[in-house]
Amino acid sequence: MTTGVRRRMGVEERRRQLIGVALELFSRRSPDEVSIDEIASAAGISRPLVYHYFPGKLSLYEAALKRASEDLAARFVEPRTGPLGARLLRAMGRFFDFVDDHGPGFSALMRGGPAVGSSRTNALVDSVRQAAYVQILAHLEIEDPPARLELVIRSWISLVESTALIWLDGRRIPRRELEVQLVHDFAALAAVSATHDDEMRALLHRVLKDEPGDGPFSDLVARLIALAS
Amino acid sequence: MTTGVRRRMGVEERRRQLIGVALELFSRRSPDEVSIDEIASAAGISRPLVYHYFPGKLSLYEAALKRASEDLAARFVEPRTGPLGARLLRAMGRFFDFVDDHGPGFSALMRGGPAVGSSRTNALVDSVRQAAYVQILAHLEIEDPPARLELVIRSWISLVESTALIWLDGRRIPRRELEVQLVHDFAALAAVSATHDDEMRALLHRVLKDEPGDGPFSDLVARLIALAS
Repeated sequence: MTTGVRRRMGVEERRRQLIGVALELFSRRSPDEVSIDEIASAAGISRPLVYHYFPGKLSLYEAALKRASEDLAARFVEPRTGPLGARLLRAMGRFFDFVDDHGPGFSALMRGGPAVGSSRTNALVDSVRQAAYVQILAHLEIEDPPARLELVIRSWISLVESTALIWLDGRRIPRRELEVQLVHDFAALAAVSATHDDEMRALLHRVLKDEPGDGPFSDLVARLIALAS
Repeated sequence: MTTGVRRRMGVEERRRQLIGVALELFSRRSPDEVSIDEIASAAGISRPLVYHYFPGKLSLYEAALKRASEDLAARFVEPRTGPLGARLLRAMGRFFDFVDDHGPGFSALMRGGPAVGSSRTNALVDSVRQAAYVQILAHLEIEDPPARLELVIRSWISLVESTALIWLDGRRIPRRELEVQLVHDFAALAAVSATHDDEMRALLHRVLKDEPGDGPFSDLVARLIALAS
């Protein structure tokens, strides 16, 4: 039991608490609209004490973004077993969990939030994109990707980002539908690339040959056949 | 014939000249790497005189970006006659002309250039995206787009941006191939959406029924059939 006397936190513990409080506030309102006073109040400490741990709002924002980036990057990690389509679909589910949980903060960041102009912020966003890219290559078991594969993966990652941002603006489409659709988009973009390049065609055949009939890639093929008929 | 005496330019004329000189320099090196001294030297005037017309490098950068944005948005304008696929392909050609001409400036801007942090810069980039979106809706003859169509168009625009950025990083894929591929990507993303939603399916059928057998959309269908076989 606590004694009622507030325990004094260590520096790292206090910083972690403030980051958590900030992320919680940024999950409900844009970081632009959240003041240091509010963060101090929610953490139960004085405004000057916040500045003791973080010299300014930008440094607290960057620390919060760093933790969020690590959280998001960790969600792309998936065991390298089982069908690829199902793995990608699970990762999309965890990605949308993150977007759902951090809506206003995610939107503000990607649309040019308070810390835009900070090269550290840009580097953190890029590190998440890179983590997603590296994961996908690892699941495809490819170490030295040809230019067209890199293009498909990286441009699809940007499609995922923009889809999430558009979804957050009104949530007019069920997120589960978008998770499946983004997996289908990946396959569709890879297929388009494969119609332009033999190396991509061979890669696509290798990847698809082990996909089960009830996975998202087979589902897409069945849907496209139904659409064409 | 000129007399050899330098004619004195008016304020607007001088501003236009400096913007042109800046855009020319930004087309060869990142704006980060171009100094006001270089711009002054290329324009044949003194550094203090540049500051007379633009109070700082950011204001010159923003003026240059404004002109480039208007230029780019104008390239999306296309007569509303003939097959849709061919119209989109011509617009992609003009877009890649722009990207080709403004490589370092375009990359720096989209990756977070010197004026990132300026809400005016973000607004200009968004205005170009919006111009592309409005053009596509107009060509589809749709005034009140359903959420899924808006998603397909806007997320495809971000796919185009990221494809251009990746292309600029080494130019490892022929740009003509990418222009066709992006038109195919648009059709593929619309088709995926149509497999999830009846309204999108009806729209896709309406758009595709007038496409000629030798257009890019028919070409994609033929390529996909060949891929599947």
